[in-house]
Amino acid sequence: MATALGYIESNKEQFKEELFDFLRIPSVSTDSSHKDDVKEAAKFLINKLESLDLDRVELFETEGNPIVYGELNTDESRPTVLVYGHYDVQPPDPEELWETPPFEPTVRDGDIYARGASDDKGQSFTHVKALEAYLKSGNDFPVNIKYIFEGEEEIGSPSLVPFIEEHKDLLDCDMVLISDTAMFAKDTPSITYGLRGLTYMEIELIGPNRDLHSGVYGGAVENPANALCEIIAKLKDENGVIQIPGFYDNVEKLSDKDREAYQKLPFDKEEYKEKLGLKALKGEKGYTTLERASARPTLDVNGLWSGYQGEGAKTVLPSKAGAKVSMRLVPNQDPKRIAKLFREYVESLADDAVTLTITEHHGGHPAITDLSFYGLQAAAEAFKEIYNKEPLFAREGGSIPIVADFQKVLGAQSILMGFGLNSDAIHSPNEKFSLKDFYRGIKTSAKFFELLPNYS
Amino acid sequence: MATALGYIESNKEQFKEELFDFLRIPSVSTDSSHKDDVKEAAKFLINKLESLDLDRVELFETEGNPIVYGELNTDESRPTVLVYGHYDVQPPDPEELWETPPFEPTVRDGDIYARGASDDKGQSFTHVKALEAYLKSGNDFPVNIKYIFEGEEEIGSPSLVPFIEEHKDLLDCDMVLISDTAMFAKDTPSITYGLRGLTYMEIELIGPNRDLHSGVYGGAVENPANALCEIIAKLKDENGVIQIPGFYDNVEKLSDKDREAYQKLPFDKEEYKEKLGLKALKGEKGYTTLERASARPTLDVNGLWSGYQGEGAKTVLPSKAGAKVSMRLVPNQDPKRIAKLFREYVESLADDAVTLTITEHHGGHPAITDLSFYGLQAAAEAFKEIYNKEPLFAREGGSIPIVADFQKVLGAQSILMGFGLNSDAIHSPNEKFSLKDFYRGIKTSAKFFELLPNYS
Repeated sequence: MATALGYIESNKEQFKEELFDFLRIPSVSTDSSHKDDVKEAAKFLINKLESLDLDRVELFETEGNPIVYGELNTDESRPTVLVYGHYDVQPPDPEELWETPPFEPTVRDGDIYARGASDDKGQSFTHVKALEAYLKSGNDFPVNIKYIFEGEEEIGSPSLVPFIEEHKDLLDCDMVLISDTAMFAKDTPSITYGLRGLTYMEIELIGPNRDLHSGVYGGAVENPANALCEIIAKLKDENGVIQIPGFYDNVEKLSDKDREAYQKLPFDKEEYKEKLGLKALKGEKGYTTLERASARPTLDVNGLWSGYQGEGAKTVLPSKAGAKVSMRLVPNQDPKRIAKLFREYVESLADDAVTLTITEHHGGHPAITDLSFYGLQAAAEAFKEIYNKEPLFAREGGSIPIVADFQKVLGAQSILMGFGLNSDAIHSPNEKFSLKDFYRGIKTSAKFFELLPNYS
Repeated sequence: MATALGYIESNKEQFKEELFDFLRIPSVSTDSSHKDDVKEAAKFLINKLESLDLDRVELFETEGNPIVYGELNTDESRPTVLVYGHYDVQPPDPEELWETPPFEPTVRDGDIYARGASDDKGQSFTHVKALEAYLKSGNDFPVNIKYIFEGEEEIGSPSLVPFIEEHKDLLDCDMVLISDTAMFAKDTPSITYGLRGLTYMEIELIGPNRDLHSGVYGGAVENPANALCEIIAKLKDENGVIQIPGFYDNVEKLSDKDREAYQKLPFDKEEYKEKLGLKALKGEKGYTTLERASARPTLDVNGLWSGYQGEGAKTVLPSKAGAKVSMRLVPNQDPKRIAKLFREYVESLADDAVTLTITEHHGGHPAITDLSFYGLQAAAEAFKEIYNKEPLFAREGGSIPIVADFQKVLGAQSILMGFGLNSDAIHSPNEKFSLKDFYRGIKTSAKFFELLPNYS
């Protein structure tokens, strides 16, 4: 094993340069003008896998962006790990707030700044480099491995789920390994065993057939922007409790044991507030900040627009108003059912002075991994050896809907081996990923592959 | 007099071409990048006035955009009319909704399409052409006339009020003549004797110091977009009644006589709805549509923004949310007092989980002209002779704050001689002005000057 870890140590600079090439590709999947860039990112991974002389490397075309597949079979008695990652990234906007351009990776104070650095190019690339370390240093690879990288994670993986369903045999595995989550804190390795689900809706209200003069028509015509605000205000009450009838019906209550586990997690409320520039925190009554951020369902406006947004004062009664609203879900909420309840409730709040359109964007199921699963234990030991610290087990507020799909379709549990940090500003300007954790990630992955057969 | 009206009739094509030159100048005062265009529009008017050989023509520089002044004294025993207009225009956006470019005037079905066609270049230009008709046809001009054109009407006339205060003698007059309002309906001449005032506020809420991932932080951090909607929803109740404490304190109640006058105005509710593409009308309970649109105070969101407004689904808990909110005021509401009440109420609704900033944009006082004023009667007779129809007397929902200022500083009442239509789409894409009414406007203005001495 010394040689695989040694190979990693001596090839750091090369690994960084390769990651930078990956990060330079603006593979923004939500923006159709970046279609070709998304394809280029897929090709980049194909080339990397092909250079490793695996048993099979293939680019699968889909109705959307292609799926990158790779496979190496060493011994059928050994566990098979399916590595999942995504090569698409969030849009970089607002671009003017980036200190250095989003697609020109730069290292500052030990962090790599670039869109996708943490989410998910930097994190998922660690597992490719870990395999390379074994093969290029002439070592036997201790497990069977499969890679699947998609280019539609940021738009809800519409092609991946059908792909998994059609390729159950190809993807057959003992567990899924994913690095797309955050450590609980700096130098604090963490394994995420719970993820929230997601329902993402868009509301549009249309009032008059054109923008009107707010003096001439104001008072006589319903204003869709006011009406939208009134609807959104009715989605939560003053205690932060979501008002959609039936919303909480299947929510698993937090047990005393759960709450005790939460209390063991290190958390400094003052530091948390300070980092976010907040004077006060506010959320659902009766829950702590950590519980609100990961174990409780939420409802957030993600975007809002209407009328005149420019400089100065334009007196306009807008024709249209719109909002994007996401709900984070916890076990056992069903995203489709929540979407239906949302739709029914919002429809009940609008009247015929405006025309309401509700669109459902991608969603995903919440997920929980069994804490006694042997894969989790091997991962914990790998973290401990590389970081010299016992990892924490935590639930996370974000969503990786595919985790629930892997469970359902392949019957495989996921190991969420996060190397990122919550302060990485994923989905925000100035996304970053610690260069040190990029290297430790590769080593932890290599160590995990070494240890896994012992636990199975 | 035949010669002045005859001159108008034979110079229609020339007048139209001159107006088109005026409309081609994109004098958008809310947008600082159009500063030079605004100046060019002022120069255009100076050149027109200079070509008439008046007693005085002058461009007054101000801290903002220049004021155009012109003066012709014929006989001090005659009434002096101060013509007011504005050469600045609203921004053209959303520009993609214009059928022909906003600054390339085009005639379709008898209407001139261009930004500023009705508001106010086309309407105010009529009074310049009316004077020209007398002078160029060799007729004696029947009154003394002064012109004042400003370039900041769309941004609240910040330079005009100080200018009037500093030039009381220069602007001394018996009445102010303004064409910046609409006729009640097509071929239905109307004199506006009441205008609403305006208070225009901007609210900004800042939550976290950057856009956050709505999964990682959602639930634990107050969302400024949700908070903004909650504030806006509390500004009115379900009956359309504004909830700002003290808002209605000084509102003049609608008398039975007022309501009778309203009932005499022709109004087809079905046609009104159809033109606006609405299934239903909604407004303050207990009032008719016309009352709501002109005699009652209002509160409207003019613009709304937060987070991700692009295509698809970006999961973001936004850092900021903002709204522009205008309130139309009726006699005797004071715009400054209303701004203060708005500020106090909104401040009481926000808590320290977000940072609130409230900005006051320009406002203006409501105004009413005495129905028995001789200038109004002369204007009514002029309309009758040119349109062959008795004009209606109506209150209008829009604001021309300067009307209240002329009253206060110069002690002069205003004659609002509107040639536009409410369907002119002022402040909207595809603004238009009837070419026929442009010509009838010039004739009505000429007739008004002829008749006025008989009424004084």
